[in-house]
Amino acid sequence: MREPADLKALAPVQLPALAQEIRDEIIAVTSASGGHVGPNLGVVELTIALHRVFETPRDQFVFDVSHQGYIHKLLTGRGGSFFQKLRQTDGASGFLSRDESPHDAFGAGHAGTALSAALGMATARDLLGTDEHVVALCGDAAFTCGITMEALNNVVTSTKRLIVILNDNEWSIARNVGAIAKYLNRLSTSRTYNRAYHDLEKFFTSLPGGPDMHRLFTKWKRETKDFFVESSLFEKLGLRYLGPIDGHDLDELIKNLEFAKNSDTPVLLHVLTKKGKGLQVALDHPEKFHGSSPYDPKTGENPAQSSGSQNPARQNLQDVFGHALVRFARGNPRIVGITGAMPSGTGLTHLQSALPAQFFDVGIAEEHAVLFAAGLATKGLRPVVAIYSTFLQRAYDQIIHDICLQKLPVVFCMDRAGLSANDGPTHHGLFDIAYLRCVPGATIMQPKDEDELVDMLHTALQHDGPSFIRYPRGTGPETTLKQNPAALPIGQAELLREGSDLALWALGPMLEDALALAAKLESENGLSVAVVNARFAKPLDRDLLLAQAATIPLIVTLEDHVVNGGFGTAVLETLQDAGTKTTVERIGWPDQFVGHGSSVAQLRAAHGLSPEAIYSRVLTRFASDKSH
Amino acid sequence: MREPADLKALAPVQLPALAQEIRDEIIAVTSASGGHVGPNLGVVELTIALHRVFETPRDQFVFDVSHQGYIHKLLTGRGGSFFQKLRQTDGASGFLSRDESPHDAFGAGHAGTALSAALGMATARDLLGTDEHVVALCGDAAFTCGITMEALNNVVTSTKRLIVILNDNEWSIARNVGAIAKYLNRLSTSRTYNRAYHDLEKFFTSLPGGPDMHRLFTKWKRETKDFFVESSLFEKLGLRYLGPIDGHDLDELIKNLEFAKNSDTPVLLHVLTKKGKGLQVALDHPEKFHGSSPYDPKTGENPAQSSGSQNPARQNLQDVFGHALVRFARGNPRIVGITGAMPSGTGLTHLQSALPAQFFDVGIAEEHAVLFAAGLATKGLRPVVAIYSTFLQRAYDQIIHDICLQKLPVVFCMDRAGLSANDGPTHHGLFDIAYLRCVPGATIMQPKDEDELVDMLHTALQHDGPSFIRYPRGTGPETTLKQNPAALPIGQAELLREGSDLALWALGPMLEDALALAAKLESENGLSVAVVNARFAKPLDRDLLLAQAATIPLIVTLEDHVVNGGFGTAVLETLQDAGTKTTVERIGWPDQFVGHGSSVAQLRAAHGLSPEAIYSRVLTRFASDKSH
Repeated sequence: MREPADLKALAPVQLPALAQEIRDEIIAVTSASGGHVGPNLGVVELTIALHRVFETPRDQFVFDVSHQGYIHKLLTGRGGSFFQKLRQTDGASGFLSRDESPHDAFGAGHAGTALSAALGMATARDLLGTDEHVVALCGDAAFTCGITMEALNNVVTSTKRLIVILNDNEWSIARNVGAIAKYLNRLSTSRTYNRAYHDLEKFFTSLPGGPDMHRLFTKWKRETKDFFVESSLFEKLGLRYLGPIDGHDLDELIKNLEFAKNSDTPVLLHVLTKKGKGLQVALDHPEKFHGSSPYDPKTGENPAQSSGSQNPARQNLQDVFGHALVRFARGNPRIVGITGAMPSGTGLTHLQSALPAQFFDVGIAEEHAVLFAAGLATKGLRPVVAIYSTFLQRAYDQIIHDICLQKLPVVFCMDRAGLSANDGPTHHGLFDIAYLRCVPGATIMQPKDEDELVDMLHTALQHDGPSFIRYPRGTGPETTLKQNPAALPIGQAELLREGSDLALWALGPMLEDALALAAKLESENGLSVAVVNARFAKPLDRDLLLAQAATIPLIVTLEDHVVNGGFGTAVLETLQDAGTKTTVERIGWPDQFVGHGSSVAQLRAAHGLSPEAIYSRVLTRFASDKSH
Repeated sequence: MREPADLKALAPVQLPALAQEIRDEIIAVTSASGGHVGPNLGVVELTIALHRVFETPRDQFVFDVSHQGYIHKLLTGRGGSFFQKLRQTDGASGFLSRDESPHDAFGAGHAGTALSAALGMATARDLLGTDEHVVALCGDAAFTCGITMEALNNVVTSTKRLIVILNDNEWSIARNVGAIAKYLNRLSTSRTYNRAYHDLEKFFTSLPGGPDMHRLFTKWKRETKDFFVESSLFEKLGLRYLGPIDGHDLDELIKNLEFAKNSDTPVLLHVLTKKGKGLQVALDHPEKFHGSSPYDPKTGENPAQSSGSQNPARQNLQDVFGHALVRFARGNPRIVGITGAMPSGTGLTHLQSALPAQFFDVGIAEEHAVLFAAGLATKGLRPVVAIYSTFLQRAYDQIIHDICLQKLPVVFCMDRAGLSANDGPTHHGLFDIAYLRCVPGATIMQPKDEDELVDMLHTALQHDGPSFIRYPRGTGPETTLKQNPAALPIGQAELLREGSDLALWALGPMLEDALALAAKLESENGLSVAVVNARFAKPLDRDLLLAQAATIPLIVTLEDHVVNGGFGTAVLETLQDAGTKTTVERIGWPDQFVGHGSSVAQLRAAHGLSPEAIYSRVLTRFASDKSH
């Protein structure tokens, strides 16, 4: 277990060996249980240099997204078995977290937040009159995100002391897109570019005119003030630009960080790193090894997949969605897909390779992604925004102000709705029904299986208004897809099983639980249990609900979402407004943030949502209702 | 009533007279009933030039925020009595709206959306193979907003044909802040800056070396490629920069727009305009006349205020908040206030002038504002973010991912919660309880009056976690403030009146309605009615609620918020989870967008929320409950 002081005690010549040791450790742990391989292997030297030059927790590092934080963890007392259980129950989080260590100044799992937060810290330091250092570590992808640009605009007016590290590896998860990526690439490749001013000066003084020429040059320079000193985009925004710096050269890194430490203006260090450095398969496949499931360090293969221990018949819902979208988009050139830097995670890679003209990756720019879709929709296109539920939170205002208010027919395919067990609280998608249900005109659906996912996409693409389809990470229950997808009547649920004692209304994957629960209640308790595949969280199937409520005294709702304001609440509101007295027992996640864990089942059990716990809760409510 | 064709039929010499006529019309209408005076007076010539050069609705204009859209309305068939009833019931909206006219390509009331939406339209055009023009009109303030920067990053990879107009008047509502504002100012003021390349070339050829010198220069230029052609920030991002252009010179505007129209690369026209041009009082007070209540065009005074027709004893809640914050911040230097370009609207100007070191205006950058606050809070500061409810939607992810997940004690003072009658759907704050209530750890309050607003701010500043205080636009019911504010127990309601037949639970300004309703139900119907000032939407006062529910059969909730997922729903959930059978009648805004109107009372009446409508709804529910 290493502490920052141990690192400082090493002689400079010992540092490369430390870097190697850390790389070995990361490869050993991530190959066994998965994790963010590439980004971490790229910042080994950078993180070592940071901890040599600065002193946490007195100084503060803010890691953007923080999936490049493993080395920082290993250097701040979080190695050993804690790190070996990375992203598992009782092990280290895959991200930085203020709860995990005082060395983690700011937690993160979403991109683009570091510079803003660091600017807040630096400003607070200035106000409080202390003198610690604040360092923001941002990937180049963070600069495609508007928040980083908002923060950049404020640096110069907020503080004189801030160190920004631009960790430039040319990739977000996918390869970076847009003008800024191109610009950084030019900065990195054109050495003369950054030295133009000095070159010009040298050139002038070397001319036959000698000192006279130099004087003329000085005069001209004065007249065109700011032209030279503000050559880089960052300098235009008031930061001193240093770089590009070789991110794997410890000496150069330390030298530049020492310089930045003593600077009396905000500094941006442009550090070039190799994503996956030290692991050939990761260097060869930067996107795959951004975040990886377990892998063989030699071949890069997933041992579980190659040994066939996973059910090969099961396809990820992301792939089901991706293939269906390609099929629909082939038939209709007006259908386009949009992602914010997540083509592979969302399954949109299928569209990207099949129909590149109908595919758009806008970078880590969720607000722009949704507005761009809105603009496309005004011209009669049918945009599909593929996005994780938790990242859609970024575009909430655009959903209200631009999409729903203008009734634009944009389809949102909200992946990772429900738990993302290994990732934890920054990645669970547990709030979307609540935050969408209050917005007029939003249609919210969740499919029970792969086939219904395709039906819902088909339905949404024909619907004359905004629609939101949520589905979890991973595989569905089966793979059989109908020949031709069906258009589902908006707001119509599917009654799967009749019953008279109680009715279970389940949304999405909770339907499997509901069916098992119904069978158990029938066989063990002799109850007659109806089961409904709700399909729509909004609009609800009011007719079916009221018909059941007329005779059934208890309705149990099951959803993979917080109970506050979710699907069950919609059921409750509908029944109450209709004047019925039917009891509603709402099963869902409680009002607390859910941490990371080894599996969804483990996290459900820890939060009172195991099948057994649900069974006994339903029985208790049924009995208590009877006794009234 | 003018149509675009009428404008095109005019001779060029007639245009200045048209501009004058339009200015007179805008001044006449806004001085009588209020509106966005300054921004519109600044773009009279620009809008005329646009309609001379382009052809809507075939070509598309996207106006950012659209509070500079009056001239566009006047030129597209929306003059006369429709414009005279601007922002009133049955009159023109204060913003552009796709529902109002086919000439409005995209509606808006929030800043920073135009470039993204326009990019979507341009991309759709390219895909569909049509050839219309898309023009985005963005104020300089829009460039402090991250969305605009996200869009800028995507322009170069998305389309070759897009016209961006940077309407540079140096103001958002307040004066612009940050590095980009400084940068634009330098672009505008340093003529040589933009001509540096040509100057350098001329300078070289004028040197005694003659052609030789020129050759040397060419060689050096090649070696330092991109250095010159990419001098401006916009050119670094792949847009051709034209400007600065005098925004009141019709000939120059038309000439440049014609040039842009024929360009085969995306173009940015930097147009300098004067906010308030043609109205001296507006030129003298750009912030006050950004959006103004009725005024005397000579003196700038509000006639209602000077004639004393408003109750002078009533203070705006914004001022009550602003003064209270100054008082608390004087006593504690760790208390700081943050606004996103709205110091006067939110009442934060009081802090700005009293304690400038504790005040931060970050520009139209809501995401950064909240993250910056998070950073400040990690260092022990107590940040207060003053923001309109509807704009907080912009920072929803930051509230979840950065503030609540990390339990940071940031206070949100959410102004314009409820209706902003004249502004309409883009400005009503009707969703905040629903979108905040699902987030673990959020404390949500709403005061019944000015004194309680101060108490709640005091309470929030002592609370060890995030808190959200919502209050409406305008004045409260009274002005008497206690000598010393009280700390309210978190989650405790105030029972104002006992009763046994039904209980009214009201939040914020609905309490006045509840008290009047209770009196009426008692006097006219002989009912015994309890009244509760709920104070907290989360956590609810569960104890009081359950105590009442034990004996009272009907609870009526009243809130200035949508009913779906709001405060009333929280009451319903709590009672249902506790196993009670008390009926809950939830009074609030229905599940539809609410338009603009002359007054809150008028809009309430139109949506079934007049006092009479509520009275009869409550009686009906009470009777129907009895009959069961």
